[in-house]
Amino acid sequence: MGKKGNLMSVRHDIKVLDATIRDGGLVNDFYFDDEFIRDLYKANVDAGVDYMEFGYKASKDLFDENKFGKWKFCDEQSIRDIVGDNDTDLKISVMADVGRTNYKRDIIPRSESVIDMVRVATYINTIPAAIDMAEYCHKQGYETTVNIMAISNAKESDMKQMLELLGQSSVEAIYLVDSYGALYPEQIREIADMYLEYGEKYGKSIGIHAHNNQQLAFANTIEALGQGVSYLDATMSSMGRGAGNCPMELLIGFLQNPKYNILPVLKFIEKQIIKLKNEGITWGYDIQYLLTGRFNLHPSSAISFTKDKRTDYATFYSELLDKE
Amino acid sequence: MGKKGNLMSVRHDIKVLDATIRDGGLVNDFYFDDEFIRDLYKANVDAGVDYMEFGYKASKDLFDENKFGKWKFCDEQSIRDIVGDNDTDLKISVMADVGRTNYKRDIIPRSESVIDMVRVATYINTIPAAIDMAEYCHKQGYETTVNIMAISNAKESDMKQMLELLGQSSVEAIYLVDSYGALYPEQIREIADMYLEYGEKYGKSIGIHAHNNQQLAFANTIEALGQGVSYLDATMSSMGRGAGNCPMELLIGFLQNPKYNILPVLKFIEKQIIKLKNEGITWGYDIQYLLTGRFNLHPSSAISFTKDKRTDYATFYSELLDKE
Repeated sequence: MGKKGNLMSVRHDIKVLDATIRDGGLVNDFYFDDEFIRDLYKANVDAGVDYMEFGYKASKDLFDENKFGKWKFCDEQSIRDIVGDNDTDLKISVMADVGRTNYKRDIIPRSESVIDMVRVATYINTIPAAIDMAEYCHKQGYETTVNIMAISNAKESDMKQMLELLGQSSVEAIYLVDSYGALYPEQIREIADMYLEYGEKYGKSIGIHAHNNQQLAFANTIEALGQGVSYLDATMSSMGRGAGNCPMELLIGFLQNPKYNILPVLKFIEKQIIKLKNEGITWGYDIQYLLTGRFNLHPSSAISFTKDKRTDYATFYSELLDKE
Repeated sequence: MGKKGNLMSVRHDIKVLDATIRDGGLVNDFYFDDEFIRDLYKANVDAGVDYMEFGYKASKDLFDENKFGKWKFCDEQSIRDIVGDNDTDLKISVMADVGRTNYKRDIIPRSESVIDMVRVATYINTIPAAIDMAEYCHKQGYETTVNIMAISNAKESDMKQMLELLGQSSVEAIYLVDSYGALYPEQIREIADMYLEYGEKYGKSIGIHAHNNQQLAFANTIEALGQGVSYLDATMSSMGRGAGNCPMELLIGFLQNPKYNILPVLKFIEKQIIKLKNEGITWGYDIQYLLTGRFNLHPSSAISFTKDKRTDYATFYSELLDKE
């Protein structure tokens, strides 16, 4: 694949998606106050962000409503309480995890909903179930994407088979998700090229969702963008599980299209993110996340290390060696 | 230029340089205790680092010895107190700033010194003075490099003229220095290619020194490496002016040559860097540094913003707009 655009060009195919509530909710069990969500919505509208993801459509049969904030479930009314009829250019998305969503009950027809897009999250081995769910949502009238997590663990041959299946489906976009923050830019470019090849063949857009374990979430996002990837996930101040995501402030600062405006992002961080951090909510690059990224492992052990306020990095390194 | 090596290959031309004292000293006016420096020296030896930079050779005529720690001056005896005769594979470097070093007095013959390399730091408009200093140090027996700072502000035609002059000099390596943390990977690859073209023509190595204003110091370093750059600056936990540098722990984690070992780096961070941070020494990525990087400005205003414990990012953004 050739490069698509450069630092002087505007790409009108770009869609910036704010995943602050959804990935950030993994840090605080989705307990955001309504003012935070209202300010975030306003910041995204003003900043020219294309999509705002409000959270998960998790099944209340599987997850106890008393143990999570409302954005793990994203009831229609919860979103409407914030956005009304959403009379803005910002589209609204929710994420539905394969095996954790009662979609036939909980995903109502789009004509009755303020939601525009459903993103289906899956590991590569549950692609058939993901496609079933995406097709259901498509028939309900939604834009859909399938986001394949932990792609750093996938074999090339499996990836090609998966891309072939997704190419033939009704989804708008296929996401490359580096859940473990394990991938370097040269790997991201290669994987993005593979996705883009199938994307061109079948008329699908390609997206990227990066994690910051090795301080590469922003670099990997803009390198993928340079190859032709167009759906770009970011979060305010990188809020997200473990080392967090691609920081919205860096991404908006990078994009050339004058529709994007960094000032509302700065104001939101100033007012809401600093408050969260002062309350002790913790995320972002640290040695333990670098190590799970480097070992291509789920960040769960690094998250425990952080919660336990440990700083014995050398011991943690030895513990990870045993998990390889 | 073609790519040089990939993730599976070992590049024997790579030289990792630890600049923790020198760039980190800009954060704490070079007031490190001797135990910190001894532990850092031991960590670098054990980690397989190639060079350790002890600090600046600043002139005591210009700078008051009572206002800075000893590593701003790097007296021969100060270094020997730490390393003895340095009977290790780790080489020792110091930095000499053009116009701030009385080099004819303070750079003694290498045969009498434990220092191996002198790195001359210059802006592009003082290249003739930098070459004079480098030639003097070369004649004294040292390895030399010239490090051209703030390259994000230089014109291409000036860069080519400068590279021609340095190509014809006696220096071992020419450094690309992104002092403002302003450059994106695609720009770094282009500039690195230009440097490498002259490097190949004249038999010079090329180096990179990156800053982390946009969380790109590591990405830019490994992308330059992929193009053929071989002298790589890093600091422990990215300690350095403003947003800091390329983190040593990420760089060592990336390199494939088994001579490099991350464990001593982790132990050093655990013991010494956490202590510094707990003492209130501050550096690293933050919104104010992103903004000076994005505006391609010296980080001084962001450093003042940090010292004043300000968090009014939107106001700071407006202040920078006025400086454009």
